[in-house]
Amino acid sequence: MNSVPNMPLSGEAMTGVSSKTYRDGMSRLGAAVNIVTTDGPAGRAGFAATAVCSVTDTPPTLLVCLNQSSSVFETVMANRALCVNVLAGNQEALSNLFGGKTPVEERFSAAKWIYGRSGAPVLEGALATFDCELSDHQDLGSHRVLYCSVLDVGLCEDTAPGGLLYYGRGYHRVGLTG
Amino acid sequence: MNSVPNMPLSGEAMTGVSSKTYRDGMSRLGAAVNIVTTDGPAGRAGFAATAVCSVTDTPPTLLVCLNQSSSVFETVMANRALCVNVLAGNQEALSNLFGGKTPVEERFSAAKWIYGRSGAPVLEGALATFDCELSDHQDLGSHRVLYCSVLDVGLCEDTAPGGLLYYGRGYHRVGLTG
Repeated sequence: MNSVPNMPLSGEAMTGVSSKTYRDGMSRLGAAVNIVTTDGPAGRAGFAATAVCSVTDTPPTLLVCLNQSSSVFETVMANRALCVNVLAGNQEALSNLFGGKTPVEERFSAAKWIYGRSGAPVLEGALATFDCELSDHQDLGSHRVLYCSVLDVGLCEDTAPGGLLYYGRGYHRVGLTG
Repeated sequence: MNSVPNMPLSGEAMTGVSSKTYRDGMSRLGAAVNIVTTDGPAGRAGFAATAVCSVTDTPPTLLVCLNQSSSVFETVMANRALCVNVLAGNQEALSNLFGGKTPVEERFSAAKWIYGRSGAPVLEGALATFDCELSDHQDLGSHRVLYCSVLDVGLCEDTAPGGLLYYGRGYHRVGLTG
């Protein structure tokens, strides 16, 4: 790691870009909607997330950016297991459920789950699922980037609903082309 | 950094997930298409990329995943400046140009550019632009994750073309809703 010593916490002081301007720009970067789940010694939890990105297929590794002040943060870090469930175009309601203040058990009772190798809940009907264990992380300001080794990949056979995307501060559906 | 000592380079040996299976799964994770540009002491370069993700707005920071064997890798690392240009729905041709084997000058001559604070080329007509300087990085297998401090954000006034997305191994356009 090439750390930057004494990185200031206020981006505006350093760069002149306000959080609002940055968010306005990021609202134009379309992204898939996922439900990230975890289970293990610290209990079950899940949250909706768009900040998921492939890192490399050698070895299969993805990343998830997580706010360190979020309610699920300690649970994920203690379990060191998570599943990225890529939502299909007809799963918008599930995204809202996992993005709000709904209690954990109510969230999970709205769908069917199986358990992956990591111990994390895997969503039935998701377009794709990536069952992972945490391999490393890096803190940047308010967030932690979680590097996740992929233990298993699941692919839903029914791709007709397409994918659920978030863009321009709203949901969109996008169809498969291949 | 909590490094994992002796992480094996073969994902398959460690996790049982082949590169092909992982890629099949990742083809279902829709993502915005961007042209990432750089300029500086090591010269000008640019490439199409979907592996771009917001990290935090405190301070405004994004990440770009880059293959360490790519032709632009040394140029970006030497310049330590880059601009993420989020493509509009009508800029598919530009994505193909920057994703192929076209010589650098030919790529850039296909569009209009201004120069950002970092020194990187900023694309006129992009849906949004994030002019950045490299602040940190982390290597994972074949790739390097570049953490980028955002110096400037540009927003195109004409949002009618929507955004350009890559999903299911093909391009899609997605409209603004807000």
